[in-house]
Amino acid sequence: MSDRLYIFDTTLRDGEQVPGCQLNTVEKIEVARQLEALGVDVIEAGFPMASPVDLNSVVEISKAVTWPTICALTRAVEKDIDVAAEALQYAKHKRIHTGIGTSESHIKYKFNATPEEIIERAAAAVKYAKRFVEDVEFYAEDAGRTDNEYLARVVDAVVKAGATVVNIPDTTGFRLPTEYGEKIKYLMEHVDGLSAGKAILSTHCHNDLGMATANTLAGAINGARQVEVTINGIGERAGNTSLEEVVMALKTHPYLGIETNINTQKIYPISRMVSSLMNMPVQPNKAVVGKNAFAHSSGIHQDGVLKNAETYEIMDPKMVGIDDNAIVLTARSGRAALKHRLKVNGVEMDGEKLDQLYKKFLQIADQKKEVTDDDILVLAGAHRAETRNVKLDYLQVTTGKGVRSVASIGLKIAGECFEAASSGNGPVDAAIKALRCIIKREMTLKEFTIQAISKGSDDMGKVHMQVEYDGILYYGFGANTDIVTASVEAYLDCINKFKS
Amino acid sequence: MSDRLYIFDTTLRDGEQVPGCQLNTVEKIEVARQLEALGVDVIEAGFPMASPVDLNSVVEISKAVTWPTICALTRAVEKDIDVAAEALQYAKHKRIHTGIGTSESHIKYKFNATPEEIIERAAAAVKYAKRFVEDVEFYAEDAGRTDNEYLARVVDAVVKAGATVVNIPDTTGFRLPTEYGEKIKYLMEHVDGLSAGKAILSTHCHNDLGMATANTLAGAINGARQVEVTINGIGERAGNTSLEEVVMALKTHPYLGIETNINTQKIYPISRMVSSLMNMPVQPNKAVVGKNAFAHSSGIHQDGVLKNAETYEIMDPKMVGIDDNAIVLTARSGRAALKHRLKVNGVEMDGEKLDQLYKKFLQIADQKKEVTDDDILVLAGAHRAETRNVKLDYLQVTTGKGVRSVASIGLKIAGECFEAASSGNGPVDAAIKALRCIIKREMTLKEFTIQAISKGSDDMGKVHMQVEYDGILYYGFGANTDIVTASVEAYLDCINKFKS
Repeated sequence: MSDRLYIFDTTLRDGEQVPGCQLNTVEKIEVARQLEALGVDVIEAGFPMASPVDLNSVVEISKAVTWPTICALTRAVEKDIDVAAEALQYAKHKRIHTGIGTSESHIKYKFNATPEEIIERAAAAVKYAKRFVEDVEFYAEDAGRTDNEYLARVVDAVVKAGATVVNIPDTTGFRLPTEYGEKIKYLMEHVDGLSAGKAILSTHCHNDLGMATANTLAGAINGARQVEVTINGIGERAGNTSLEEVVMALKTHPYLGIETNINTQKIYPISRMVSSLMNMPVQPNKAVVGKNAFAHSSGIHQDGVLKNAETYEIMDPKMVGIDDNAIVLTARSGRAALKHRLKVNGVEMDGEKLDQLYKKFLQIADQKKEVTDDDILVLAGAHRAETRNVKLDYLQVTTGKGVRSVASIGLKIAGECFEAASSGNGPVDAAIKALRCIIKREMTLKEFTIQAISKGSDDMGKVHMQVEYDGILYYGFGANTDIVTASVEAYLDCINKFKS
Repeated sequence: MSDRLYIFDTTLRDGEQVPGCQLNTVEKIEVARQLEALGVDVIEAGFPMASPVDLNSVVEISKAVTWPTICALTRAVEKDIDVAAEALQYAKHKRIHTGIGTSESHIKYKFNATPEEIIERAAAAVKYAKRFVEDVEFYAEDAGRTDNEYLARVVDAVVKAGATVVNIPDTTGFRLPTEYGEKIKYLMEHVDGLSAGKAILSTHCHNDLGMATANTLAGAINGARQVEVTINGIGERAGNTSLEEVVMALKTHPYLGIETNINTQKIYPISRMVSSLMNMPVQPNKAVVGKNAFAHSSGIHQDGVLKNAETYEIMDPKMVGIDDNAIVLTARSGRAALKHRLKVNGVEMDGEKLDQLYKKFLQIADQKKEVTDDDILVLAGAHRAETRNVKLDYLQVTTGKGVRSVASIGLKIAGECFEAASSGNGPVDAAIKALRCIIKREMTLKEFTIQAISKGSDDMGKVHMQVEYDGILYYGFGANTDIVTASVEAYLDCINKFKS
């Protein structure tokens, strides 16, 4: 058996469906391009049947990347497969990922079917998908809690029907590494098509008990040749398996003899980009990509590291692209330096777009002594959202301790000016109340997050908001050295996304 | 062998030494009391030799809790052990935790010694500690990368010297679960004192490759009878093993036959308390205690959960104390309701302290319709920091888009009033510049974090700051519905902690 492990990234499908992580198509393309540069083998680009937006994303990602296989998810339903095939039409390498639940609980409560019916539906779906593409992956949902003997029969049937990859998801994150490893081993030993090399097994583990990475490795050690992962481990509930943890575990344990195509030095930049685009903070003590992951704090450890780095380090931060000697940009930095820092942070930009961003960069650099990577990511993000219907013309807020907060605001809506003023409980409350005097729709602010993790009081404040309107949740983002202005901009970002 | 697993919590030692996580003694006592209520068996309370503050914390924690064993860390050095014994004098159940590095890299680079010398020093330290306490734990630092045959000789020597617990730390987080499990199994089989029940083995795993929980379980399954963990997995670099993940993995896998004394319903409250006190955010996709850990988002999953919760759930959120039907407090809520919410959030309060807090609660409840758990935690925290030298008298800030930010500030220093004004780049910058016109020490703002994760624009903003003064880093915290005021209060909190 080959010792090459295929990396299947589902950041844009299983990751993106988490509330608050939704990306627009332009952002998805950016992530997909970085995944290609990172060296992933398969990009799961979406679930085309879910919505026209998802379908369109799969189409556009198919056009934007060259090397990775583009994969589209479906249920074991012909209509889903039709739509997926259509969405994949421009992909250079395409795969349909179809499947059905196989655990007792899924068969009984979700499908109200018999085990034999499920096998028939599974094989039929694979055969149907084969009409459109050569490369068909089948997932046995909740395989983690499916009886091994029955699961082997399912795998056997779908491999005979033509599946090239069979995904064994631990959908609920329940299995222990020994158990999951044994499951993969059992299947490798009991399904002829696998030993004959007709198909490979894939892992897809969830982290509900903190064991996704260990389960995934146990799967690979026992014969799985594809692993399904996400950047930063994002995903439903406690998330999916972290790409960075699995890849670095294999890299630091070369004696396992399992290799991937990942360029590990691109891990940190893409981790930052995904965290920033999806508004999903990475906790400081997150393995591999957390802020503290390589920070030695105690006196004993620092002493040891000074004597010999190996005493306490198993990875060099540079291996994952963490650059201690980061170039700090200032008003004197040129376009090339800006372009380089953008690239380190996972944003590729050139030509006129770069020129426009450079102008904004100089404005910020004039205000601040040092422009950090965070600022640059904010700039690049702010740049994308230029075309708005409702714009902030001016804002003036007075606040403090011992005074009542008061705000006056001016908005430009389709070119026309509107003004209002309001007092409130704090400056943000006053500003948003004034804004709502102008825009009188029935909106509810559901969540409001200010992040300003920085080194100085003159740094960029970043604000994320969720506003509910007409039964739909909208996500908005704003950034400004003034956190009150950033808050108003995030609110306006939501309003500008309203569908009606 | 008994199937009872002892939980050794090191939140207050290995967790607390992370930069930014420092707690004062009062806060440590609060955490220790909650750990006792949670049902942990051992509380590692500090490293008394590290500083007089650490020593004092161990003394005070010893006085404050009754049931758990209080443990103090030392190096294999007589002076450390003397100080630890002194610190533990008031503990009802006491343990000294001494040890030395045993891996080739540690022996060679850190101690410049031979393997035989290390064994001698290890046994001598245990014997010395035995003069003071009956219960002595030995740690073989970097055991994860120590040769098993040599490690067995070390364990044998310290058990013969009287150690009751031998800790096998995977200090660098390098080992895979199979490897770590085999190491524990090897020791169980090759050290007579262990099979004779003279001592038990303990796990102590780090999460650098995301495998701490799986390694810890592998250790327990192979015979370790103590696990060293922290709340939220906080700790150096990528952190220690998460208490909540290990405990819930055992709880959801009763067929392993391993039991703990943990009251799982207290997990979520203590997770919130530690995150809040230590300023360490928990990422939304953190297992067991993350905001999304029990959130089903995709349509397919929601449908399944509605048909039968078991389809996608392996744990009921109530098992870990997540209360969906949280009582929302309003201006009409009484003392009892406030006391209950405080308790749910891990804060025990009574009598006059509760009365004082209730008054403040009513002020907030007047300003806001609903008082959330976050507000209550902030209130309880703010309450602690009442006695300050430098106080904010008043603050007035004007800011916005299209205006220059300007602030005027009034401070009371030892009763006397000082005033100043300044413009700045954003409202926080203006306010802090004004503040620095009054307090002219050479201070550097090193880090600045605003968190306002909430449901409305009138919610509490929380600000964390790190200010360097005279070579020492100080951590400050402020909370207010006005984020500018909160920022100034955090800065003042730092200043009030200055040692000279």
